[in-house]
Order: sequence, then structure tokens, then C-alpha cells
Amino acid sequence: MHRRRDVRGQFTGAPIPADVLGRILAAAHAAPSVGLSQPWDFIRVTDDRTRRAFHAHVQHERTVFAATLAGERAERFDGIRIDGILAASMSLVVTYDPARGEPAVLGRHAIADAGLYSVCLAIENLWLAATAEGLGVGWVSFYREPFVQELLGIPAGIRPVAWLCVGPVTHLETTPDLERHGWARRRPLADAVHAERWRGRDDQLPVGSRRG
Amino acid sequence: MHRRRDVRGQFTGAPIPADVLGRILAAAHAAPSVGLSQPWDFIRVTDDRTRRAFHAHVQHERTVFAATLAGERAERFDGIRIDGILAASMSLVVTYDPARGEPAVLGRHAIADAGLYSVCLAIENLWLAATAEGLGVGWVSFYREPFVQELLGIPAGIRPVAWLCVGPVTHLETTPDLERHGWARRRPLADAVHAERWRGRDDQLPVGSRRG
Repeated sequence: MHRRRDVRGQFTGAPIPADVLGRILAAAHAAPSVGLSQPWDFIRVTDDRTRRAFHAHVQHERTVFAATLAGERAERFDGIRIDGILAASMSLVVTYDPARGEPAVLGRHAIADAGLYSVCLAIENLWLAATAEGLGVGWVSFYREPFVQELLGIPAGIRPVAWLCVGPVTHLETTPDLERHGWARRRPLADAVHAERWRGRDDQLPVGSRRG
Repeated sequence: MHRRRDVRGQFTGAPIPADVLGRILAAAHAAPSVGLSQPWDFIRVTDDRTRRAFHAHVQHERTVFAATLAGERAERFDGIRIDGILAASMSLVVTYDPARGEPAVLGRHAIADAGLYSVCLAIENLWLAATAEGLGVGWVSFYREPFVQELLGIPAGIRPVAWLCVGPVTHLETTPDLERHGWARRRPLADAVHAERWRGRDDQLPVGSRRG
């Protein structure tokens, strides 16, 4: 978990052995889900035309975001790589189907987003399993959902949740990219922990194992 | 990942050693987040009055859900335990703060929910780390968000994402509760994997490592 990174620039492009891919998908599929609905799907994308089309869309969205920045923030963003779509061995697109397990998904009547949460749990399992297998994973989120639905023929009502670039890497960085580029800094764990109520001070908690 | 379960009935109530709690929170805090925003917080709840009040609310929501069921579904649901709030050593409530990292969270301009996704990745890290430490975790989702906000003094705009019951357990079941009770069945992994496009058949993929 502490070794895992969000990878952009270290992909080698070497193929992922089929048994390795099977294991990381099985790990994702073993995630918890509300009402045991398992509302996720995984689309493996290797086709060059598809990846190029998505890459061009992401580049466009990069300019949209860049236009909201000024001065030093804009300069820093210039140096930050936001995707490894063409360099990674493959992309795995993870989707959410709200109809899975209906009617009456146990545990979803009061919280409509609970199904979406389940999909994210599967994504983290996938990411950690890939890390354990020595692969890198990079989550690209500079895209509009309707573009991805159209590109991959995803039916209306089914929502793309993540576009993940996956594959062997030369190495995993030890510091997150955005910290290395001075874009953001990690927050101390102690600031995120509260006792009994919001902002309840937690003096007892030893956070000595804090690794950021 | 394959050993992890969503626990309701096996909590012993024994205390969680402080160093163990520190490690599972550090694991959660090491999760990936959009723009390195780390938009999560963790509220440790042990107070009996708070837990009883939440438990009563969950029991009420159980009746709300039960009223939507009929016949055999209603009967099956009767036998299913939906929470371990009072039996578990503690609860950990995980929240999402959309203002964290603003303005201009890198990677969130096109997908508003990306911050919420990050919180879920932290929850899965927490869950897996707890499993590795021999603890059980149960995600309770029979509640209304405003009730939890009020109960724990969570400010408007910050959203409770999960109420997790955490603690030592007698054992972890090998089959999910909802499958043991005949409520739902796990889906074969092969059904969830597509090649290149939605419903693209993936004949190459070995899913021999499939463990459901």
C-alpha cells in the first residue's frame, strides 16, 4: 500500500502475462460490494486507434483545465505529466451498472451512491494487486464520461468510473508525482483523525507508523 | 483480498491495540487521491450513547427497507444481520471534504465525483489492512447521511461516506453472508470482463485464478 503510486511516466510497454492479468482482475472482483451486487465491469483496451482517440480527448481536457490556472500554478502544471495512455501496455476501463442486483439492492435504499462506492473498492484492489505483481497503474481522470461511453460503446445508464493505464514499469517513484512537482503536499495523518465527533481531538492515537 | 469479508456477527468486542489502529489508519491515508487532495477524514467512535443512537437509526432504516420486500425475499431478509455496531470494538466513520485541495484540484474538473472515489480507495485500504491485522470490518449503509452529520457534528458540505464497524473477530467467514443466506450469488469474473469494447468477447483471458 505504501509502495503503490499513481504512474504516468515509467511504463515500459512490455506485455502483461495473461496469468498476471487474470490475478489482478480476480483481485478486483473479490472486492466488497453493496448487497453483493458486484456492479463493476472491466473493459481491456489495447487497440491503438481507441487509445489514440482517448489520448487526444485527454489532451484537449488538459488545455481546458490549464485555462483555469494562472501564474506559478500554470507553470507548474506545464511540467506535470497527466497520463501514460500510449506508453502503458494496456488500459482497463472500469464501469458501474446501477441495475446490477436490482430490484432491492440490500444496503442501497438510503444511499444511492453506495453502488458507485463498491466500484471504487474494486479499483483499489486492482491497483494494489497490480502493484504486488510489479506493475504500475495510473488513473486518468481528464475526460468527459459521455466521450468514453461513445468510444467504447457503453450503453446509456452504465457509467465509466475509471480509465486505468496498466503495465510493467521501470520503477515506482517513492514520492507522488504531484509532490515532486511542488503541486501538492501530503497532509499529516493526525490532522485527518478525530475522536468521537468532528474535530474531537485524538490525543491517544499513536500515528508513529505514519508514512504519509 | 480473498480472505476479507464484510463482517456483521463475529465481533468479539476486544480492544484494538493502539499501534494496530495506527497502522490501519496509516494504510487508509496512503491511498491514491485525485490531485493528491486526500479529501478523507476518520472519526473514531467508541462512545456508547453515540453508537446506540446510530444503532436505533439503522434499525429504523431496516424496517423501511423491509417494507419494500414481499414473500420469500422478506423472509430471507428477516434472517440477515445488517450491522455489528454495538458488538464491534469501535466504529470508524469516513467522510469526504470536497473543499480539500481547492481551488483547482488536478484531475477533478471534468469528473466531480473523483474526490468521492478517492475516499472509497482509502476505505478499501483500511479494510484490507484491518484484515491483514486479523480484525474484521463491516460497512453499514442503512442510514441517512443527514442523521450521521447531526450525530457527529459534521459540518454542512462534508459528506459521511462510510460507517465502518471494526474490531477483533472470532473468525472470518469464507462465504459472504448474503450468499450463505441465499440473498445473492457471486457473478463469474468472466462475465465482467470485456475486450476492446462493451460486450467485446475476451477469449484470451485466463480466469483460472478466479476465486469469486
